[in-house]
Amino acid sequence: MRIALDAMGGDRAPEATVHGAVWAARDFGITVQLVGKPDVIEAELAKHQTAGLDLPIIPASEVIEMDEHPSAAVKSKKDASMVVAVRLVKEGKSDAFVTAGNSGGALAAAMFGLGRIKGIKRPALSTVFPTDSEYGGCLMLDIGANTDVRPEFLLQFALMGHHYAEKVLNIPNPRVGLLSTGEEENKGNQLIQETTPLLKRSGLNFIGNVEGKDIPAGLADVVVTDGFTGNVYIKGAQGVASIIQKILIREIKARPMAMLGALLARGALKALQARLDYREFGGGPLLGVDGIVVVAHGRSDGYAIRNAIRVARTAAQQGIVQAIKQGLTEETFQAAMESQPAASQT
Amino acid sequence: MRIALDAMGGDRAPEATVHGAVWAARDFGITVQLVGKPDVIEAELAKHQTAGLDLPIIPASEVIEMDEHPSAAVKSKKDASMVVAVRLVKEGKSDAFVTAGNSGGALAAAMFGLGRIKGIKRPALSTVFPTDSEYGGCLMLDIGANTDVRPEFLLQFALMGHHYAEKVLNIPNPRVGLLSTGEEENKGNQLIQETTPLLKRSGLNFIGNVEGKDIPAGLADVVVTDGFTGNVYIKGAQGVASIIQKILIREIKARPMAMLGALLARGALKALQARLDYREFGGGPLLGVDGIVVVAHGRSDGYAIRNAIRVARTAAQQGIVQAIKQGLTEETFQAAMESQPAASQT
Repeated sequence: MRIALDAMGGDRAPEATVHGAVWAARDFGITVQLVGKPDVIEAELAKHQTAGLDLPIIPASEVIEMDEHPSAAVKSKKDASMVVAVRLVKEGKSDAFVTAGNSGGALAAAMFGLGRIKGIKRPALSTVFPTDSEYGGCLMLDIGANTDVRPEFLLQFALMGHHYAEKVLNIPNPRVGLLSTGEEENKGNQLIQETTPLLKRSGLNFIGNVEGKDIPAGLADVVVTDGFTGNVYIKGAQGVASIIQKILIREIKARPMAMLGALLARGALKALQARLDYREFGGGPLLGVDGIVVVAHGRSDGYAIRNAIRVARTAAQQGIVQAIKQGLTEETFQAAMESQPAASQT
Repeated sequence: MRIALDAMGGDRAPEATVHGAVWAARDFGITVQLVGKPDVIEAELAKHQTAGLDLPIIPASEVIEMDEHPSAAVKSKKDASMVVAVRLVKEGKSDAFVTAGNSGGALAAAMFGLGRIKGIKRPALSTVFPTDSEYGGCLMLDIGANTDVRPEFLLQFALMGHHYAEKVLNIPNPRVGLLSTGEEENKGNQLIQETTPLLKRSGLNFIGNVEGKDIPAGLADVVVTDGFTGNVYIKGAQGVASIIQKILIREIKARPMAMLGALLARGALKALQARLDYREFGGGPLLGVDGIVVVAHGRSDGYAIRNAIRVARTAAQQGIVQAIKQGLTEETFQAAMESQPAASQT
């Protein structure tokens, strides 16, 4: 098992990426290919004990920065770490690609380098949203790859999410929900009205339309939405969680007794934090491209990178790309795709 | 000042509505017209000290239930409490209408009974989202009245939100943001791309596009979005806040030391809760109809109802409807409306 890691990607690269790579190589006994500037990577590696670990450096002289225009950067920087890492996957020299860099860049690099799975209309970026359910997380997609979508794209997102949740998150017969403004079928916008009947015919475990509050409550295992709504939603959720934390800390610090109380309640506060910690899930897969791509949070530290590599390894072991290809050919699903009304194709 | 309260609306009606009405009549020295079933209202009123308060009962024999189809219910139930209350406003017998009932019903009753302000294309439902800013809240609209919108609707939402924030929330020159997937102008979906230039020409204090995380952080005073995204967003935020609270309580209860700690930190926890309490803002205005309508949360208790009545009173005192009418006629704004490209009218 070889994972190609973009050693230069993310707010805390290369410290966090190299740290995460060392951690993953040791914990999982796999090869982590460090793609990027050799001198920078070597300097970081020297800070760790790496004896016996398989951490080859794959040279790449350029970096796609966080603020660059994704597709323009991918086209002009042929030797960017992301582009080189994707090429390794394409050429069969690596089993998966992991990055905490510019997510638009990752999408562009994957689209140019790997292409879409045959039959998939649009790839979708996903994330595992922490929930209060048995599995502790819900796969939400799309969270930003496609800001304007059509019903059949959402139908395919549901299929991809189903297989990922089943194979990688290990959730049997995952409950698939469509994000809307109410559970009733007459709620939602035109896109939702047109998508609901397709999902009902998809053969997936479609539980109907779910509301914004149902995701953290853990009522669905896979939630399908367009990339605009999904992106606004997860950033809102992160913003709310972080503002709650900020206000709580401020209010505690303003009260000496509360400071003592917080100390006594530290175990509970840490348990809460662990439940909400995006790092546990490591990263979200970019589903629909013809290869395994895991996009970690830009702020990822070593632990988050380690977990993103773990996720990529599981996705490769479980053959997620093959499962999606297979799922696309299933008769029930094909019939649902074809039942798409002509009117909404405009 | 006379406020028409739907005494039958909301999960906790009539207890909460009558309680809130008594509270508001006493605190603000205003007339609160209790619209609904007289015997039910009288029985509730008997539980309170109402000597010297002006709490007339206006009979209405029907109720629009939470699960009814809004416009069908409004059309068939001519004597529903919402319909009768709106009629009072229309006939000049009341200065504003407040309800915690079916929000779709409130919208339909207001549209049929009061109609739109001349020139306003769509009314918008709004809410004050708790934030970590000087003013403690951000007006977000639309949160559910219009699930499919056009750029000029969003432009008008911005105008209405601006005047409401300035006049009722008392925020000078409110910062208006457009909810998108990134601050950059090339981010967002097609609707956002088409709306941004209109807002830039609007003459409002448009600060550009804001992300989901910027709302709780308090970076804008008014945030404009379509009713689908807005609805999903606020329900998500409420869901996240409530799950954090639920997990925290569970983790504390599992640890005796943490129980003691929580007791010591009680002041800080209460301060946090107060900051996040939707009840402080009472309710969100339905903007764009030709009269004052305030829609309170379905779960409103007496305190929330009292505050919703306070909000309605301020909106009436400040002449919010007149301010919007005036704003629509301003040259800069009219020019922005007319700059709407023909292509997006389809």
